[in-house]
Amino acid sequence: MQILVLGGDGYLGWPTALHLSAAGHEVAVSDNFARRGYDEELGVDSLVPIATLEERVAAWRDVSGKTIKAYVGDLCDAPFVHSMVGDFRPETIVHFGEQRAAPYSMIDQAHAIYTQTNNVVGNLNVMYAIADIDRDIHLVKLGTMGEYGTPNIDIEEGWFEVVHNGRKDRVLFPKRPGSFYHLSKVHDSHNIEFGCRIWGMRATDLNQGVVYGADTEQTKLDSRLATRFDYDGVFGTVLNRMVIQAVLGHPLTIYGDGSQTRGLINIVDTVECIRIASENPAERGEFRVFNQMTESMSVKQIAETVAAEYPGEATIQHLENPRVEAEGHYYNVTHSRLEELGLKPTLLSTTLIDHLFDVVERNKDRVDLAAILPTVHWRETTNELRPQIAAS
Amino acid sequence: MQILVLGGDGYLGWPTALHLSAAGHEVAVSDNFARRGYDEELGVDSLVPIATLEERVAAWRDVSGKTIKAYVGDLCDAPFVHSMVGDFRPETIVHFGEQRAAPYSMIDQAHAIYTQTNNVVGNLNVMYAIADIDRDIHLVKLGTMGEYGTPNIDIEEGWFEVVHNGRKDRVLFPKRPGSFYHLSKVHDSHNIEFGCRIWGMRATDLNQGVVYGADTEQTKLDSRLATRFDYDGVFGTVLNRMVIQAVLGHPLTIYGDGSQTRGLINIVDTVECIRIASENPAERGEFRVFNQMTESMSVKQIAETVAAEYPGEATIQHLENPRVEAEGHYYNVTHSRLEELGLKPTLLSTTLIDHLFDVVERNKDRVDLAAILPTVHWRETTNELRPQIAAS
Repeated sequence: MQILVLGGDGYLGWPTALHLSAAGHEVAVSDNFARRGYDEELGVDSLVPIATLEERVAAWRDVSGKTIKAYVGDLCDAPFVHSMVGDFRPETIVHFGEQRAAPYSMIDQAHAIYTQTNNVVGNLNVMYAIADIDRDIHLVKLGTMGEYGTPNIDIEEGWFEVVHNGRKDRVLFPKRPGSFYHLSKVHDSHNIEFGCRIWGMRATDLNQGVVYGADTEQTKLDSRLATRFDYDGVFGTVLNRMVIQAVLGHPLTIYGDGSQTRGLINIVDTVECIRIASENPAERGEFRVFNQMTESMSVKQIAETVAAEYPGEATIQHLENPRVEAEGHYYNVTHSRLEELGLKPTLLSTTLIDHLFDVVERNKDRVDLAAILPTVHWRETTNELRPQIAAS
Repeated sequence: MQILVLGGDGYLGWPTALHLSAAGHEVAVSDNFARRGYDEELGVDSLVPIATLEERVAAWRDVSGKTIKAYVGDLCDAPFVHSMVGDFRPETIVHFGEQRAAPYSMIDQAHAIYTQTNNVVGNLNVMYAIADIDRDIHLVKLGTMGEYGTPNIDIEEGWFEVVHNGRKDRVLFPKRPGSFYHLSKVHDSHNIEFGCRIWGMRATDLNQGVVYGADTEQTKLDSRLATRFDYDGVFGTVLNRMVIQAVLGHPLTIYGDGSQTRGLINIVDTVECIRIASENPAERGEFRVFNQMTESMSVKQIAETVAAEYPGEATIQHLENPRVEAEGHYYNVTHSRLEELGLKPTLLSTTLIDHLFDVVERNKDRVDLAAILPTVHWRETTNELRPQIAAS
């Protein structure tokens, strides 16, 4: 199958491209290197050193004998998207190419507007390229579990049947997300569902949990194939960040009381979910939603698991929650559709956490401790980034 | 009360500004004249001649002795919005300042992206100005009944209580709109609801039905106070357009079988709803939704009412529906909250339609018949505007 991976230079886009290529698909990637640019802007870097896209593609050819074609350009540039889709003629487009950090979108007005414009316009350009060039292309779009928020009812996979005043309908599951970033994904979902109705697009919207883990079967093959590992307060996700804190002897920081529960997924399952979704496309006109997560844990449980597993001393510290989010809420998520299609979940385990400790240990001289703490506060309209630098 | 009306030069923004000023409020308007620009782009014009904003404001001073301050600028220009809100210090911001035609957003990719960017970014700039300058400002935001689509259950006012697997929650009513324009309003609603949570904003989201009618108590006072009256296939709404077709002896055109049912509201009720919402603000942190419509009718019923009322001959013609929308659907809408606050509905009546016939009769030499027919087709990704011109 011809598969185009948008955002193919990122944390998940790159391992996905490798996984799909290893599975025998003809893969191309596109990227505008915005993610590497955010590092420059924030003065941070991936814990694990990463090669350039050119080096990565060459390394994969060395290791596997397979070619990954690379398109360099911006999804907000409509002619670029149109000509890339026309040139590669994919059967599936996997869309990771969006700004993906909630705190980044909450820095200030400019970052909120950038996030929503970049994500919504880029996605509209992809939709129009599909509608113009080949309406049979299957769009596999990355969304987030954060789109749902934390309702007091079970979270279903995108749609649910509702009975109201004695009448019944299958409706979109209501969304109530917690950042301008999460909102951009909600906007995308609504736009795509409409594209399925008017153009007969086939779409799979993946509401992904918090991803953790440092590598996949392919990224481990050569250091030039490594993917990024973020731990800073803006792009770092909770489990990865806590592993680093443990190794460095820094308290594991919990925002608020830590009772916030989130869906989790291991990076090796993410790339497998994308393969499964691509190989089992949605029908023409179908807007299909999968909740791409394998287990739920509270932030406190994650911290306790990491602390218990760490061979040395590890303490836990509660910080005032810089976000606006519910604590002590109900959280029960249906996530059976990917498993029905063949996903074998890799749950958080001792082995996995031990492996992460190793990865961090090998790279711990690269850690910038000052970058770990949260700098972005949801209730403020401007946030000074990394005030720690000014203070040190 | 200090009230700032965004989009105050438009079909509804201008009569609203007059109505609020007449009611004793201190009113300012802002506009970037985009709506007048769309006329130039599409080669059409308001049926009723309209004065410039400068002339309008001067005429209102002549007629009423009251001043309306005018700010000229674009809501997508963040510094403009910030300085305007800081200068006028409104207690209420009424936000009409968005691209508001579904067909315009469906012309092609550029118009879809313009509509979503313009509306979403403009609204975010307004939200940030409120959050920065005064979180007590009440945002009265115009949305549309079209955000809901046509679910098979009763449509509630923005929120509804749902029971699912034996658990209960009050959630946002699911949205499934029918154009990239309607989607932009859904995006706005989600963004504003989030602003209420993180910043304690007070917001009233008005899901307005299809507005008809040519004037209000104030616009009738002087010809320079008249508001625009659109009848073209892109900006003209159904009832106004059919009245013109009747007067010109053109068949009343129905898209599809005409069983599509829509919520309607008279322009005199629109301006009164805005006054009521402004004078009864939402609480701090409250995202309040009102369905701003007074009755429901099918497109076929509207055509039959206009045809029956017209003193001359009037025939009805069915065109292939250029939109993608359900026909023969269930439609039952709750719209009691504005009435509970004092709205006295002005339902569609013989008198109202007769008055519209008069308005059209007086201006019928200004009608461009070729502009009436639909030129924008939902399933196409590019639409040639007014092919009639090329053919004539």
